[in-house]
Amino acid sequence: MSKLLIVGTVAFDAIETPFGKTDKIIGGAATYIALASSQFDVESAIVSVVGGDFPKDYLKKLNDRKIDTSGIEIIENGKTFFWAGKYHNDLNTRDTLATDLNVLADFNPKVPEHFKTPDFLMLGNLHPAVQMSVINQIPVKPKLVVLDTMNFWMNNTWDELMQVIKKVDVITINDEEARQLSGEYALIKAAKKIHEMGPEFVVIKKGEHGALLFHQGNAFYAPALPLEEVFDPTGAGDTFAGGFIGTIAGTHDISFDNMKRAVITGSNLASFCVEKFGTERMEILTKAEIHERLQQFKDLTHFEIDVE
Amino acid sequence: MSKLLIVGTVAFDAIETPFGKTDKIIGGAATYIALASSQFDVESAIVSVVGGDFPKDYLKKLNDRKIDTSGIEIIENGKTFFWAGKYHNDLNTRDTLATDLNVLADFNPKVPEHFKTPDFLMLGNLHPAVQMSVINQIPVKPKLVVLDTMNFWMNNTWDELMQVIKKVDVITINDEEARQLSGEYALIKAAKKIHEMGPEFVVIKKGEHGALLFHQGNAFYAPALPLEEVFDPTGAGDTFAGGFIGTIAGTHDISFDNMKRAVITGSNLASFCVEKFGTERMEILTKAEIHERLQQFKDLTHFEIDVE
Repeated sequence: MSKLLIVGTVAFDAIETPFGKTDKIIGGAATYIALASSQFDVESAIVSVVGGDFPKDYLKKLNDRKIDTSGIEIIENGKTFFWAGKYHNDLNTRDTLATDLNVLADFNPKVPEHFKTPDFLMLGNLHPAVQMSVINQIPVKPKLVVLDTMNFWMNNTWDELMQVIKKVDVITINDEEARQLSGEYALIKAAKKIHEMGPEFVVIKKGEHGALLFHQGNAFYAPALPLEEVFDPTGAGDTFAGGFIGTIAGTHDISFDNMKRAVITGSNLASFCVEKFGTERMEILTKAEIHERLQQFKDLTHFEIDVE
Repeated sequence: MSKLLIVGTVAFDAIETPFGKTDKIIGGAATYIALASSQFDVESAIVSVVGGDFPKDYLKKLNDRKIDTSGIEIIENGKTFFWAGKYHNDLNTRDTLATDLNVLADFNPKVPEHFKTPDFLMLGNLHPAVQMSVINQIPVKPKLVVLDTMNFWMNNTWDELMQVIKKVDVITINDEEARQLSGEYALIKAAKKIHEMGPEFVVIKKGEHGALLFHQGNAFYAPALPLEEVFDPTGAGDTFAGGFIGTIAGTHDISFDNMKRAVITGSNLASFCVEKFGTERMEILTKAEIHERLQQFKDLTHFEIDVE
């Protein structure tokens, strides 16, 4: 079975959407990635840090899904990273109301001994210095290294981010971030420039407009499922990344055809994530539901025209 | 051969984009629709009005493409409808600099006798009263009536527009317009409400994000081709509509499967339209080029996953 190492935040979130609001609930990029990738035939481990306030039984819950949490450092006298945000009515934009780094401020990631040679490495969205530290602790290059990042790191830690980007095979970012990173408006040109920075595969996430995969002049488009209700978009991008790397790690296949399946599956899982607050939907999601929705993705995109 | 009747503007445009600007060039919804649909096996006719300033040799050029222009009234002492616009740097938004209705202000459309029983009717974007007048001149309901309209008519002629919407089988509008028309944010809900207003098929155009086709609970997604250069977006929506109705009229097939081909083909033709200023690209476009690009649409969307 593939070993998948995930580095990212494990956090508390407080979320407000037009449909309601939550108190502190469990969130964090690594949490969403691990929940999504646990749908596949992989052994995963999270490298992260939490405070003494983080519920131990949630770690147990992750362990029950074959997610190794021995790399999640617990700082008993510290507090867990906390993010609060409020989504606007269109659910495409949001205001950040609070970002309390807490134990994340001095996070020094430690890859567990038994996960020092993972087959796959997923660098969830957090400080590029932390991502680089994890890369440096792994002596043999994994089969595939996937990076998720965001505009915040482009604005604040450009040089460190560029060092990480050099080292990865796949980058997943949204369309505005692809434009910012490359200085190109047309996404096909943006992808070309980003290829030159390092990643052989560029995945551009466009929220309700789906996602684009670029590789050596080839492009593939995974639509987002048109949904009646988007309840809470939090974690959708991380879940997409988790579905993507989970598909690849579960099949041990890094061909372009399998990457296509991976972006479709990422989009599939993300469409569930947004149906409830936080991680709630992902915790009860079944393989049968995923398969059923896959048929909708096929119906949504399949057409037949003879090319003469 | 199918008879396709097109009502819409035949106009002069002055366009400014980040890449350059034009003096008065030929434009108009009916012009773009007719040029696109002339790629298919159809006999078409335009109902419109121009002034004495409109070049007669352009009408001749349309005739050479099997486009009947006897329904284009020429008011010799009048001036042709003129629109001037300037696109912003992202090419997704624009400012209207001038809208001189001229002969369009008192336009009273007259369907030529030999086109009074068309197989297909395409109502290009213009005043709903003109669209309704054309509907009323046709004694037998065509096989399919397609309506293209925009927010301007929703803001200014709501009641007249609703009367037209009741009479059509297909409506093509953009995502913001679908939201305005239905009062629903989620496009799948918007399409349901619009179905209830009349059209059995709802096509939602999303520009660089492609187009969605909705019909009786089914959805289909046609991507836009990721383009290196969008030179001038003018006429892309009309060209999409022309490729859509042209495909259907050329095959005489109004099944959902053929509608899928029609939105893919509409998206295909629109991707050419934006490559040059105005109608320039559409005038030289060949069937071979269309077929070649169709393969790109297949590659862009085709994936294989076994559904268990």
